[in-house]
Parts: sequence; structure tokens; C-alpha cells
Amino acid sequence: MEKFPKRLQTLIQYLKKLPGVGAKTAERFAFHLLKWEDNDLEGFSKHLFELKKNIQNCEECGALKEILCPFCTDNMRDQNTLCIVSSPRDIFLLEETKTFKGVYHLLPHLLSPIDGKSAEDLNLDHLKKRIQALGTKEVIIALDSTLEGDTTSLYLNKFIDNLGVKTSRLAFGLPVGSPLEYIDEGTLARALIGRQKL
Amino acid sequence: MEKFPKRLQTLIQYLKKLPGVGAKTAERFAFHLLKWEDNDLEGFSKHLFELKKNIQNCEECGALKEILCPFCTDNMRDQNTLCIVSSPRDIFLLEETKTFKGVYHLLPHLLSPIDGKSAEDLNLDHLKKRIQALGTKEVIIALDSTLEGDTTSLYLNKFIDNLGVKTSRLAFGLPVGSPLEYIDEGTLARALIGRQKL
Repeated sequence: MEKFPKRLQTLIQYLKKLPGVGAKTAERFAFHLLKWEDNDLEGFSKHLFELKKNIQNCEECGALKEILCPFCTDNMRDQNTLCIVSSPRDIFLLEETKTFKGVYHLLPHLLSPIDGKSAEDLNLDHLKKRIQALGTKEVIIALDSTLEGDTTSLYLNKFIDNLGVKTSRLAFGLPVGSPLEYIDEGTLARALIGRQKL
Repeated sequence: MEKFPKRLQTLIQYLKKLPGVGAKTAERFAFHLLKWEDNDLEGFSKHLFELKKNIQNCEECGALKEILCPFCTDNMRDQNTLCIVSSPRDIFLLEETKTFKGVYHLLPHLLSPIDGKSAEDLNLDHLKKRIQALGTKEVIIALDSTLEGDTTSLYLNKFIDNLGVKTSRLAFGLPVGSPLEYIDEGTLARALIGRQKL
């Protein structure tokens, strides 16, 4: 006998694809879903089915859009400052800070030779055209502080420098609200090097 | 401006209904789902939509079934021993132990006056009829060791006693593989009271 009914087992397999969800959690989710009201289950299913049909990446900047891109259609935003990110979610995180009023540019991925992701697929031609069309004065590189993020930042920095446009990247340093004893050496070193005037 | 596109926000609301999933995790799930292959997303959606159509509770014992109940249709199982559980998942947990070969009976819920769940809705008439039809010799009460589970166990014990059938419940004691220092007082007290011959 199989452990669970076959279709429940298939649902568990799908749930296990979610980030950070192992077998036990997926089982818990599946049995919880069995107790959901019919209309919740159908609404959830419908939204999943239509997810990528209704939410797309803006062809221009890459941000998520339903019909119109909320960034490309907003004239109030500062067209001279362009922020480069590597995930649509990062745009929302930056928006939440309410400190950036420029426009965005989503990279298709970070450089990662080990995963076969090279500079040719970064679509830098499109980036160049946008920088020229927007008359960008400053590019802020807002990529992850990981090996892939750092490599991509360096690569982009050189590319944009060649276009004669100023670049900057997110500062390294202490997370707000954290005691020094919890900070790793690497971060502390970067915070020291980048020390700021009070 | 809304934080996320409206439909993504709705999907996040559904994901937040899953047990133990808060806003941040639901957002992480939603952005992960945006990266899924179309056929995975459609398969997941389809299985959710059809979940309760394809997987039902057996009318007789309450276990999950697709077409035929795997327990009620299995003559190799011991019809004389009936195990009472309160969640379909518990049946699978008990099956995994490979130590029980009898049949099951799922209660619709545990007694919980605070949630308006009273003894009248336990459908004990059906339980009585099953016990008589199966010629049950022993009923094992396998409910949670919570306030609601204990109350229900005591209530059932009395009800089944009146039918002249032997009852037992799952033993309390040490979890296997745990040092004594991690055991709470209540469990340790029950392990002492229920001490077993070596």
C-alpha cells in the first residue's frame, strides 16, 4: 500500500517544491488543504493557474506588472537615476524603504559560470539603450552581496563606466538594530572601511 | 500604490492560510511560484482544484480514499480491533508504525465546548453500530494528549464501556531516543506511574 492516496502524494510533491518546505511540512500543508473550504481551494487553484498569465514582467524595465508597469508609466519618478536589481521582489523591498524615487532595471540573472549563466545573456544592449534613452545620470547597482552578486556588480560597474555614467552600489555595514557581537568579521571589516561621518 | 500587483497579493493571502506560514514566507512562496515552469504551476493548480473531488473520507470508517477505502476493503485486517482517531493523518502515522493491523474509526472532531464542538456531533450512534457490526473485541483510543483529546478519551471510554467492549488508550511515557533531562515533569510523572516490566 502507498503511504498516502496517490493524488495527495502528487500534491505533496508539488508543495515540496516551495522554498524551505520538506516532506513533513508538505504533508502538513496537504492535510491542512483537505480541510479548506471549497471556495478557498478553488480560488487558490485559480490564482495559481492564472499566475503567470496575469502577472508579467514589464518588457522595458522587468518589474512585475498586471496591465501597465507601475514604474514606467509614473512620470513623477526620477528618470535620471536607474537602479539595477536581479529579482522582481527586490524592487518591492526597495520601494518599501521609500528612499528611492528613480526607475528600475531588472537583470535576467546574476553571473554564475558554474550554472552556465554568462555575460552574453545579461542583455546589456537593452540596458545600454535604456541608459541612453532615459539620459541616466547615475546607476545604482543593488545586487545581492554574494559571490555572484559581487561578480556581476564589478562587471556592470566597468560596463557602465564605459558609457560615461556614474555608478554606485549599496553600502556594506552594520544591519540596523544589531549588537556588534552578532556581526560577522567580513561585515565588520566592510563597516570599518566604509565608516561614515556622524 | 499597492505593495504588490493585486493578484499576487491575493495569492499571498491564500498562501498565508497554510499552517505556520506568515506574511514573509507567503511572499517568498509567491515569488518562487512566479519562477515555476508552466506545467508545474498548472499541475499544482489542477491537483488543488480537484483535491476534495478526488480524495474523500470513507463513509464507513472516515479514512481518506480515492475510490475504495484501503482499510474497509482489506479482509486481512483484524476486524476485532478498532482504533479511534481524530484526524485522517493520524491513520497514516499509525500505519507507518506497522504495529497495528486492525481497523480505524475517525471522529468528526474532538470535544471542545469553547469551539462549540459537543458530544452530540461526535456521531456516536454510527460508532456504536460499527462496533456491533464488526463484533469489536477491543477499542484503542488514539487521540491527542491535549486537553481536548483527554476529555474526548474519557467520554469515549465511558460510552464504549457501556457497550461491554474493552477499551485502551495509547501509553504515556518517554519518547524513544530522548535523554531524561529533556522530558517535562508531566510526561516523566506519567512514565513513572505507567512503568513497565523490563
